[in-house]
Amino acid sequence: MTGRDADGEAEQANGDRGDPCGAVGGVAAMQARRAALLGPAYRLFYDRPLHLVRGDGVWLFDAQGAAYLDGYNNVASVGHCHPHVVSAIAAQAGRLATHTRYLHDGPLDLAARLLDSLPEPLGHMMFTCTGSEANDLAFRIAQSATGGRGVVVTQTAYHGVTEAAAAFSPALRLPGGLPAHVRVVPAPLDGPDPAGRFAADVAAAFADLGRAGVGPAMFLCDSIFASDGVVDGPPGLLRGAAEAARAVGALYVADEVQAGFGRTGEGMWGFTRHGVQPDIVTMGKPMGNGYPVAGLAVRPEHIARFGRDVRYFNTFGGNPVAMAAAGAVLDVIAREELIANAAATGAHLRARLRDVQAGHPVLGAVRGAGLFAGVDVVTPDGSARPDPQNAAAIVNAMRASGVLISTSGLDGNVLKIRPPLVFRPEHADRLVAALEQALHGGTRGHGTPE
Amino acid sequence: MTGRDADGEAEQANGDRGDPCGAVGGVAAMQARRAALLGPAYRLFYDRPLHLVRGDGVWLFDAQGAAYLDGYNNVASVGHCHPHVVSAIAAQAGRLATHTRYLHDGPLDLAARLLDSLPEPLGHMMFTCTGSEANDLAFRIAQSATGGRGVVVTQTAYHGVTEAAAAFSPALRLPGGLPAHVRVVPAPLDGPDPAGRFAADVAAAFADLGRAGVGPAMFLCDSIFASDGVVDGPPGLLRGAAEAARAVGALYVADEVQAGFGRTGEGMWGFTRHGVQPDIVTMGKPMGNGYPVAGLAVRPEHIARFGRDVRYFNTFGGNPVAMAAAGAVLDVIAREELIANAAATGAHLRARLRDVQAGHPVLGAVRGAGLFAGVDVVTPDGSARPDPQNAAAIVNAMRASGVLISTSGLDGNVLKIRPPLVFRPEHADRLVAALEQALHGGTRGHGTPE
Repeated sequence: MTGRDADGEAEQANGDRGDPCGAVGGVAAMQARRAALLGPAYRLFYDRPLHLVRGDGVWLFDAQGAAYLDGYNNVASVGHCHPHVVSAIAAQAGRLATHTRYLHDGPLDLAARLLDSLPEPLGHMMFTCTGSEANDLAFRIAQSATGGRGVVVTQTAYHGVTEAAAAFSPALRLPGGLPAHVRVVPAPLDGPDPAGRFAADVAAAFADLGRAGVGPAMFLCDSIFASDGVVDGPPGLLRGAAEAARAVGALYVADEVQAGFGRTGEGMWGFTRHGVQPDIVTMGKPMGNGYPVAGLAVRPEHIARFGRDVRYFNTFGGNPVAMAAAGAVLDVIAREELIANAAATGAHLRARLRDVQAGHPVLGAVRGAGLFAGVDVVTPDGSARPDPQNAAAIVNAMRASGVLISTSGLDGNVLKIRPPLVFRPEHADRLVAALEQALHGGTRGHGTPE
Repeated sequence: MTGRDADGEAEQANGDRGDPCGAVGGVAAMQARRAALLGPAYRLFYDRPLHLVRGDGVWLFDAQGAAYLDGYNNVASVGHCHPHVVSAIAAQAGRLATHTRYLHDGPLDLAARLLDSLPEPLGHMMFTCTGSEANDLAFRIAQSATGGRGVVVTQTAYHGVTEAAAAFSPALRLPGGLPAHVRVVPAPLDGPDPAGRFAADVAAAFADLGRAGVGPAMFLCDSIFASDGVVDGPPGLLRGAAEAARAVGALYVADEVQAGFGRTGEGMWGFTRHGVQPDIVTMGKPMGNGYPVAGLAVRPEHIARFGRDVRYFNTFGGNPVAMAAAGAVLDVIAREELIANAAATGAHLRARLRDVQAGHPVLGAVRGAGLFAGVDVVTPDGSARPDPQNAAAIVNAMRASGVLISTSGLDGNVLKIRPPLVFRPEHADRLVAALEQALHGGTRGHGTPE
């Protein structure tokens, strides 16, 4: 059974046995053991879940040694097990791993490097362990700075799993629906003047909160709309919405957990493409290439009151090992010119996807920026309705061909392609070949790393 | 300026320059840089903050090479930079660091080992990155299981820094006070029949919530009362309170972030001493010896609905490197017999502290279990009122002697002694000698590792 989960991924429940034709005995036994030990709240990718044991660059390997081209994982953003990051972690773990109530150069050096990459008004960095904690903290800071509690997010946004972050993550489809302090606006996916409509929707949402007696706190927006089906532009798309939020006294918080660290191919941050200056920027996933490290940058005027009245301490946040991992990731992004690669390989990938789309009516729009692409899967009958069943079938067929992607979007019908930033044009070609094969109802056989 | 922060630690603001007599130029410059880069929400320990660069076992070393005996850090619980843990992290970081939507033996093997150490009814493990996330998730699960939102905690409890966890962490003294769904009860520190009084207080708190229309969700209690000033017993202290919570339909959640992993010297978990079986057990800090890993164990009946309706995914939670780190910590606890050491060295430490207390009227009660001790600092005038100023002075004098501890408690007057579990009797002797010196108004000079 393939279901839907946070950010619309194609997943299945823990206890399901998977496709009986394809199930490997060891995998079925692991699934049963996993259901017994971890319980019912966990989910797995793919009708035939993967048992992975090793990663290297853009490749993942299962227990039988089969290779999978990773077209999906943005956490291992500079490549699985990058030796520079691994050795930075190992060296610092062997030297010191304490916390921020002692002085250490680690958080200071990393904060300086990150702030250098951000617009000037963002003056302070704070460190957490997860993107959820970063967005949760941004919400606490925004409430302290504004005195309000109202949050506006996009319709299928995903911002985290703490209680506070889950409450403004409509992608989770929590029972009970959205709480009284949250409003959603449609992602600016299509139609005329998407930027103008988006700004008007944000203004209307805050007005609606105001009528309900809820003061404005923040407009929180993922700059690449990862779980809304991937929205690339036009550049400037976010400017009006950010201004609409500020006009009522809310902060504009850029959630860069998905779009940050070079993913979109135009500088380090996804919001750069839109010519906006956020009040707070949250970051996470790729920040430590798998080491749990996240954080936020904030304008000093917004943190003054919070710093005086509330304060913040996170036991593992800003620890020297986390800082070493994140510093090593920044090194690799620069040395290997991964932002330029995201732009070039991403453009190549989208061009190849559009070639395939031209010959396949089940593929609709191809969107994306850098190495983050979304491809609509639609019915081929001329009505072009979203077809999540076929999207899941394509994802599972590509997995059988040894290429890993997932789905996204309000209807779960958007192919979500988001490989490590070390993806090269030949990898994109291989991914697209597996897609074509899947569209023809076949698989390609497992790949071998090249 | 020495202030008070979460869990009553003696701290100072980021921008403070520290004791001008003792300030090293480099430290003052780092403090200024830190204030500029990290902003006003961060705090530092000690009037003269420490710039640490290296750790080894029970020793920490500053930038000048001076050694400090660590009598405080429970995260590096099996000793700073333990080689078995460091090599487990390095090896797994070089092999694979993905997430729980793929199958991997790491979370399964660790879950099996942890569940083996817990009472039978706790059937499932879930993994997060921080104790805050674990307590936040416990609250979400408790709400799903009970349908209520009411939380009862102790008066100076600290349970985390997400918005939800901070709301039930009165130690943070947040502006605006406690929200409507939270009630506090005094920690059972003294008086006749503390267990009976504690149970009655918990029952009364839930009754008060009920009168306010708030249904019961959970009674959340740190089994060693770390930020309430350290409460050791009598054994059985928690049983009546847990029963009172269950009688109204609330879950009893044991917060083992402080007391877990052998800290109290009687088995792996702090609640064991009290003969209770929790509905949920949360764990964190020492779990990965500094690697960000945390989690919870839950009775299957409480997670069924949450698993069906809500689900949970944490990007870094349960990743193979976290699991390797936590598994290595369990190895070391067993191989080096650290629970027995916590019991034996802890008993020696408390005996020596009581020897000192007998000769010093400024020291009041000595409490503790295993390697977690609390010593009241009181006025010597016969009234024995809490004396937080003298407690902070003692902590700072001991730091000047090269021994690290902190403070705790409602009044901030409790010396909080919580060293790595590899602390030996000779280290306890050295700590107590520094305390005696501090009580005589002097310092001992920096130590050398023995």
